[in-house]
Amino acid sequence: MKLQSFALALAAAAATTLALPAAAQFAKAEDAIKYRQSSLFVIGQHFSRIGAMVNGKAPYDAKAAQADAEVIASLAALPWTAFGTGTDKGAPTKAKPEVWSEHAKFDEHAKKFEAEAPKLLAAAKAGNLDQLKAAFGPTANSCKSCHDSFRAR
Amino acid sequence: MKLQSFALALAAAAATTLALPAAAQFAKAEDAIKYRQSSLFVIGQHFSRIGAMVNGKAPYDAKAAQADAEVIASLAALPWTAFGTGTDKGAPTKAKPEVWSEHAKFDEHAKKFEAEAPKLLAAAKAGNLDQLKAAFGPTANSCKSCHDSFRAR
Repeated sequence: MKLQSFALALAAAAATTLALPAAAQFAKAEDAIKYRQSSLFVIGQHFSRIGAMVNGKAPYDAKAAQADAEVIASLAALPWTAFGTGTDKGAPTKAKPEVWSEHAKFDEHAKKFEAEAPKLLAAAKAGNLDQLKAAFGPTANSCKSCHDSFRAR
Repeated sequence: MKLQSFALALAAAAATTLALPAAAQFAKAEDAIKYRQSSLFVIGQHFSRIGAMVNGKAPYDAKAAQADAEVIASLAALPWTAFGTGTDKGAPTKAKPEVWSEHAKFDEHAKKFEAEAPKLLAAAKAGNLDQLKAAFGPTANSCKSCHDSFRAR
């Protein structure tokens, strides 16, 4: 594929989104589902790395913890943009129907996580394991409480 | 699952990585494959959105373009951390054997993209469509040339 065709193919894929509500910037439900799973997976990997340090399963590495927290903070707002109307099916998903039927509550959980992520980053930047531990708990709790309510096992 | 068990499960998953080389921060090859696919998918989605603006398929929205470019720049260095030795199999992957047999060339492509991403961000921040167009081409080219050599169709 020539570069021009590549760029046009990209543009065509994105242009399809214009037919959808502004909140749903995805060509199809499948893309939205893949996008939220992808962003959450990357967040989860970096969160696990901090978790290992916090729980003494891996040596504390202040620089690595900061890099992990930076990725988490950068991605914290992204997954929720991909739970728009009509994205409850189209690909395998563990999202429960309550994501849409109790959307205000779901949003509250998302906002909670978005509020915790910069605090985790600030703690990681401080370069102190005790501060990291203190910030890790509330962040983990914000993940867990949302998963408990809105993600199927 | 209680929060403590949740945190311990996270830690246990991450602790497994200690047995692997430092570059491979993943519990298993499958996680590395999923991680690189996830980070590249999120990058691709945001890049497509900029592509649509650049190619006149979507209205130019300076603020949205900047947000897209910020996500791309934040993630630009991540995928390559997940192509470590032994991650050529373990889950479906389009990565060609050349990723590992010609690793220096692959790294060069990755570095090229990492160098383009901040330029795309700077152009997006300038709030000028012509500048965005000028930065988009070289970035798209860095994606394409790596895909051509290292990704199966």
